[in-house]
Amino acid sequence: MENFSHRPSLSPLEYIRLALEEDLGSGDHTTLACIPPEQRGQAVLWVKADGVLAGLEYARWVLHTVDPELELQMHCVDGQEVQAGTAAMEVRGRIASILQAERLLLNIMQRMSGIATRTRLWSKAIEHTPCRLLDTRKTTPLNRLIEKEAVRWGGGVNHRFGLYDAILVKDNHVDACGGVAPALAAVRSYLERHVLDLPVIFEVRSMEELQVLCSAGRVDRILLDNFSVEALREAVTWLGPDTATEASGNIRWNNLVAYAETGVHFLSIGALTHSVEALDLSLKIRSVTS
Amino acid sequence: MENFSHRPSLSPLEYIRLALEEDLGSGDHTTLACIPPEQRGQAVLWVKADGVLAGLEYARWVLHTVDPELELQMHCVDGQEVQAGTAAMEVRGRIASILQAERLLLNIMQRMSGIATRTRLWSKAIEHTPCRLLDTRKTTPLNRLIEKEAVRWGGGVNHRFGLYDAILVKDNHVDACGGVAPALAAVRSYLERHVLDLPVIFEVRSMEELQVLCSAGRVDRILLDNFSVEALREAVTWLGPDTATEASGNIRWNNLVAYAETGVHFLSIGALTHSVEALDLSLKIRSVTS
Amino acid sequence: MENFSHRPSLSPLEYIRLALEEDLGSGDHTTLACIPPEQRGQAVLWVKADGVLAGLEYARWVLHTVDPELELQMHCVDGQEVQAGTAAMEVRGRIASILQAERLLLNIMQRMSGIATRTRLWSKAIEHTPCRLLDTRKTTPLNRLIEKEAVRWGGGVNHRFGLYDAILVKDNHVDACGGVAPALAAVRSYLERHVLDLPVIFEVRSMEELQVLCSAGRVDRILLDNFSVEALREAVTWLGPDTATEASGNIRWNNLVAYAETGVHFLSIGALTHSVEALDLSLKIRSVTS
Amino acid sequence: MENFSHRPSLSPLEYIRLALEEDLGSGDHTTLACIPPEQRGQAVLWVKADGVLAGLEYARWVLHTVDPELELQMHCVDGQEVQAGTAAMEVRGRIASILQAERLLLNIMQRMSGIATRTRLWSKAIEHTPCRLLDTRKTTPLNRLIEKEAVRWGGGVNHRFGLYDAILVKDNHVDACGGVAPALAAVRSYLERHVLDLPVIFEVRSMEELQVLCSAGRVDRILLDNFSVEALREAVTWLGPDTATEASGNIRWNNLVAYAETGVHFLSIGALTHSVEALDLSLKIRSVTS
Amino acid sequence: MENFSHRPSLSPLEYIRLALEEDLGSGDHTTLACIPPEQRGQAVLWVKADGVLAGLEYARWVLHTVDPELELQMHCVDGQEVQAGTAAMEVRGRIASILQAERLLLNIMQRMSGIATRTRLWSKAIEHTPCRLLDTRKTTPLNRLIEKEAVRWGGGVNHRFGLYDAILVKDNHVDACGGVAPALAAVRSYLERHVLDLPVIFEVRSMEELQVLCSAGRVDRILLDNFSVEALREAVTWLGPDTATEASGNIRWNNLVAYAETGVHFLSIGALTHSVEALDLSLKIRSVTS
Amino acid sequence: MENFSHRPSLSPLEYIRLALEEDLGSGDHTTLACIPPEQRGQAVLWVKADGVLAGLEYARWVLHTVDPELELQMHCVDGQEVQAGTAAMEVRGRIASILQAERLLLNIMQRMSGIATRTRLWSKAIEHTPCRLLDTRKTTPLNRLIEKEAVRWGGGVNHRFGLYDAILVKDNHVDACGGVAPALAAVRSYLERHVLDLPVIFEVRSMEELQVLCSAGRVDRILLDNFSVEALREAVTWLGPDTATEASGNIRWNNLVAYAETGVHFLSIGALTHSVEALDLSLKIRSVTS
Repeated sequence: MENFSHRPSLSPLEYIRLALEEDLGSGDHTTLACIPPEQRGQAVLWVKADGVLAGLEYARWVLHTVDPELELQMHCVDGQEVQAGTAAMEVRGRIASILQAERLLLNIMQRMSGIATRTRLWSKAIEHTPCRLLDTRKTTPLNRLIEKEAVRWGGGVNHRFGLYDAILVKDNHVDACGGVAPALAAVRSYLERHVLDLPVIFEVRSMEELQVLCSAGRVDRILLDNFSVEALREAVTWLGPDTATEASGNIRWNNLVAYAETGVHFLSIGALTHSVEALDLSLKIRSVTS
Repeated sequence: MENFSHRPSLSPLEYIRLALEEDLGSGDHTTLACIPPEQRGQAVLWVKADGVLAGLEYARWVLHTVDPELELQMHCVDGQEVQAGTAAMEVRGRIASILQAERLLLNIMQRMSGIATRTRLWSKAIEHTPCRLLDTRKTTPLNRLIEKEAVRWGGGVNHRFGLYDAILVKDNHVDACGGVAPALAAVRSYLERHVLDLPVIFEVRSMEELQVLCSAGRVDRILLDNFSVEALREAVTWLGPDTATEASGNIRWNNLVAYAETGVHFLSIGALTHSVEALDLSLKIRSVTS
Repeated sequence: MENFSHRPSLSPLEYIRLALEEDLGSGDHTTLACIPPEQRGQAVLWVKADGVLAGLEYARWVLHTVDPELELQMHCVDGQEVQAGTAAMEVRGRIASILQAERLLLNIMQRMSGIATRTRLWSKAIEHTPCRLLDTRKTTPLNRLIEKEAVRWGGGVNHRFGLYDAILVKDNHVDACGGVAPALAAVRSYLERHVLDLPVIFEVRSMEELQVLCSAGRVDRILLDNFSVEALREAVTWLGPDTATEASGNIRWNNLVAYAETGVHFLSIGALTHSVEALDLSLKIRSVTS
Repeated sequence: MENFSHRPSLSPLEYIRLALEEDLGSGDHTTLACIPPEQRGQAVLWVKADGVLAGLEYARWVLHTVDPELELQMHCVDGQEVQAGTAAMEVRGRIASILQAERLLLNIMQRMSGIATRTRLWSKAIEHTPCRLLDTRKTTPLNRLIEKEAVRWGGGVNHRFGLYDAILVKDNHVDACGGVAPALAAVRSYLERHVLDLPVIFEVRSMEELQVLCSAGRVDRILLDNFSVEALREAVTWLGPDTATEASGNIRWNNLVAYAETGVHFLSIGALTHSVEALDLSLKIRSVTS
Repeated sequence: MENFSHRPSLSPLEYIRLALEEDLGSGDHTTLACIPPEQRGQAVLWVKADGVLAGLEYARWVLHTVDPELELQMHCVDGQEVQAGTAAMEVRGRIASILQAERLLLNIMQRMSGIATRTRLWSKAIEHTPCRLLDTRKTTPLNRLIEKEAVRWGGGVNHRFGLYDAILVKDNHVDACGGVAPALAAVRSYLERHVLDLPVIFEVRSMEELQVLCSAGRVDRILLDNFSVEALREAVTWLGPDTATEASGNIRWNNLVAYAETGVHFLSIGALTHSVEALDLSLKIRSVTS
Repeated sequence: MENFSHRPSLSPLEYIRLALEEDLGSGDHTTLACIPPEQRGQAVLWVKADGVLAGLEYARWVLHTVDPELELQMHCVDGQEVQAGTAAMEVRGRIASILQAERLLLNIMQRMSGIATRTRLWSKAIEHTPCRLLDTRKTTPLNRLIEKEAVRWGGGVNHRFGLYDAILVKDNHVDACGGVAPALAAVRSYLERHVLDLPVIFEVRSMEELQVLCSAGRVDRILLDNFSVEALREAVTWLGPDTATEASGNIRWNNLVAYAETGVHFLSIGALTHSVEALDLSLKIRSVTS
């Protein structure tokens, strides 16, 4: 039963309003000086590099927040693989409105599409294995919602949204409790006492810690941090297929497949969101009428 | 005389509060389960890759927003070049507070330091020329303030903050006015009529447009968009040293120096902020004292 | 793929903060006058009438917003059927904190539990049929989130959350389009043009309108408004089992079963949320320890 | 001299804006698909059950927040007793605007009118006595302002608006102070020390407590909680007519008159606001003019 | 029946929170550097010039917003005439908290007391007449609530709070309607059509306009703008005692009594709030106890 | 390198929006009753007393927030000395919009111009000396930004904006540290430990304290509080020209020149902002068209 999980501190509408105010401030003086308020026309959102589109829904909201009378025609959908040269969307209405929405629309869509593109690429590289990609909490402040959505469009799976929707026990927590077994006991006692039903993920850093954890009890998923490919394969084999596993730490394009072939269920990768190459998009006025 | 320019729609404090709420939601249940509220200790912010630090001021605010009693010792300053292995900052106080601030602190500083690092690297590559780097409005929504600050720490120069603090006439504006000369006249009339004192930047796409512009009148800076290195050199030479110039479009690491050596005054580069590799940092608990 | 649907204009935390401020204003002067700030004790949330509990998650948040150091023990879970006399939850900590949270905690839980109780009662009355109960948009302003959650705990199904997450074509829309067929065509064109994937529900008021609708095309669900039991049975039979149906209008406790036995799939009932009898609960201080 | 009392945490305008956003989200897609933006017409607010109207002022605000150009004609006033079939208000203007305001307008007015109707009914039942009805703090979160206003339109009297505008000493406060006399002394000292001029209401649960209270000193009103009709009559008689009294606890429709005839000055009744039957109202489009 | 009138766009608590943030920003670094967090002591609010105190209620709120554990003793009440040298209030608690609240507390109280002092002085000068002083809408942005409250403490009467709580017909309105009589008719029609019960005040600028107005109908009060003392006396005499009157325009200390003695009921004076001499107050730490 | 300094808790746009809501509330009923929505015309901002204009930029924002289609022509600039009778600005567009913006526009500009006028007058009185005027933190809550900007237009210099952008050590801080030397050491240690680069200003009250301070170390500026003219001259002479100095306390129009001629660098004067005489301005409709 869903309750508070996955709610942003800013609603999408508030996010868009604040971001427009960040760009517009006291007004788009160039457009005010040059564009007659009633001049109308048509603009096209062009894709300028191959990739996976994401953020069309936000583009619609940006445009309609600036001017509810803009008319949109979508030629693509979120998650679609597109080639350079594709016209993804057309907009008709006041030129001044389109120009004011342009930059924010592109900033959102280029970032989301960049995330979706990399996630799709990496996901395809390992699609011969059952392993899937997870994102992390290494997101840009106030953009976690759109960045996590982009990971989903790319074919990735969302890890927890914040500190509030899963338990993830790390070394500091273990140390504070005096060991793996007392830490797991503390977590269970906390969840029972508060009748909270959160998934429990437990991070281990070595085969020894893993064995201690397994004798301490069961968890929902084990996070194997900074294991080499070989150590990971050994650990996953030792655990058997019924224990959900996740690996993190130094997983890159050139060792991604090797990690995925160890049998681990998930790879969590901060770079999906913290080091993003934007997908090149542009919005061009095609024709002006009246 | 400064007036409204460069003001964010979110104040830095509000930005931090909302970003903390994005991560914390109903609470850090792992820490609540495992860490005694009064347990105290010391954490160190480690630099894990060579680069330029930026965002220490924000780190301080994040920590003090979570817990005003945390004590900080800064070992570095913003803009400083650091090697992997440097301890940039120490924090003392409640472990639970440190753990709650950790992710946001790192998300901000890794992004700012990534931007500063690339800006410094590219700036140094062209330091034998008078040319300097400009950022753009291609920033992450609601993060323009920190991303533009990071460009400054890296040695870059901030282009306009938004649509409100400079005039930048592009092709759509020219078309709507019926030519370069009428567009420049419209801008001047607008600024005079409103007694606005904004810099006027004018974008041209060819030598022909440039010549038309120069016969139409003077502007504060000419933006030469999508010129080849040769065409740019020719244009800058033709203009002479007294006209401020800026180039944009497809400027990359491998042609950066060639562009800078044309004599152009500024290169504006979206990738400084829209495609950022985060600098690797981590915050580690070093000692715990009950 | 989830996107913006079901997001409240107030986040749950903001809702609680504003509601606390509504009650506390400049402070709880009675408690300030009488209760020493450090006096601690224990309180119990007593159920005083039989019903279905809902809102424990919110109770936790209210208490922790007032005072993060309050300790909770949950003896029940949301959705549980309870008898008068049950102790649903215990709270330990500062008495002053408990007294300040008391009224809001009860106002939320009594309303949610009242809704869950009626929804459960009515749902059980028709559990021998496949028919299920839907709520409506007839909710208390700024409380739709908690009221719709309470319907789910009672065993009901949520209808659309607002005007944004489903198409529901009513007579005004039909009239504006010039008939049922043009209205359906307008909706389809709109959804295709905007690449929106919203469910389409169509309201009809008579057998004639129903027949016109069916010849005009398929929709996701047909809402039969203000049909008598007999007319509804006829309509549902005529449609056959593969067309999803929903009935609304004057459905009450004394005709509920008859309506459910017509074969209709859903009954939507505004009274589940707009005319609620609160479930009697109270929070009592049990023991005080200096 | 009024100061901060009775101020809501949300201003009425903010309340309406947030509640509209709760319903509209990304937009009323059905209306966008079917209703031409400039189609104009007339709608009537029909009363569908006998009762007391309340909330017309809010209806006006909701309509004008959605579209300031809507024209209103009021045929009734708040507090008026109306029969089913009455046209309470007419609205002229854009159909799309009317449809977007409809649900919130009705949700507010049905709730306020339901409260006013019950309060009027119960008030009339006891109008042969000097006794009057009080509401409580058992209101829906973020709706206290409109619910308390509705009680006034029904003829009731508002009890305190929150914890901030009156002292109400209950058993927990008495226990914490070590008795009735020390509690009263603590309250007086607090008010004098802070130069606060708040009314002091004191709750007693038995004749014994009442006698202790009376020997301890005077208060502004005595709240006799959970007294039987006989016990209440005895207490009120013993006190004499000069001491303001209020009864609470298990007062219902079938014992209301008996309680009121005891001579008590006020009856406070949570059910006036916490268990409300909405008054049936509807807003219908009457004519459409292109 | 009160409804929305007199509500500020910022609640008093929000006003105080924002004003504290305005002053504190990232923190009071001087105090953080010099004052141990737990150092406690006592401070006194000293009156340093004769006047009328106002704002003690706000002072309490400022102090308790900064630190709810500060203890206050009030030696004066709002509206009290005080001599230089009076100790108006004592505060006990953390020194750091007192220093952080100091400036805002003084900025509010000095302004409110300055307004109350001048209002009292001017009110006393005319207390031998029935005439009373009104304030205007010429207040400092976002401070209308406190400035109007201060006028009341000084003995003045509040004019309308904003454009929303009274009709005030001026020359522009008259011109737009084509004369005094049509303007009055437009106002009445508007109020009836919307069932609004607002007071109607009508401004006239000459004896002729006054006569036209009186033959056009009755209003709640006539505002005689820019009349000389003689002209005002003539107008008021002509109107007789049953018509409420108000004078405005160039009323100053040296003609105040003459105006008040004309028989006019109210004098409205912008300078009560727009040109305020602050009352000199200071907050001094008296003793420090570790 | 600028970081957070000088940022208001309210952005200028938010300030204007809230202030408009303060005045407009549910609407300008007089204008709604009398002015046809589409009536257009022209208004002039008249200067009615000699002084220095300030706030035209805010006036523009107020007008465009109310109605972005209003057209403005500026005839003056901020900081300009104007005579009574000057037309400072013209506005064209909807009369109703102009009337709704009028009061806030005037309230802001009259206050800012009043501050600029006094600051200019006092600055000119001492322009034969190198001494300049500083403002203080004695500003109206939530108006510090506009009041400090007005001081600059008048020719004054801004002191720190809040507690956050400079260290100012006063007697309480000295006492808490046990003397001048330990206080200065505490400040330096704090700044170094936190790598903060804030100016350090130190307040002294006597020649003795001054000598102690000078032997304790150097600071950025010494604030000589409540020194007589003679004592100040002696102190400044003793310090020599290389130590920046500031005087405060009882500096008034009639001793201003004497203080400035002592050789002190700055005079800080609370009355520049806390006791302001508004500059008389008015906005008049000049012609109405259609």
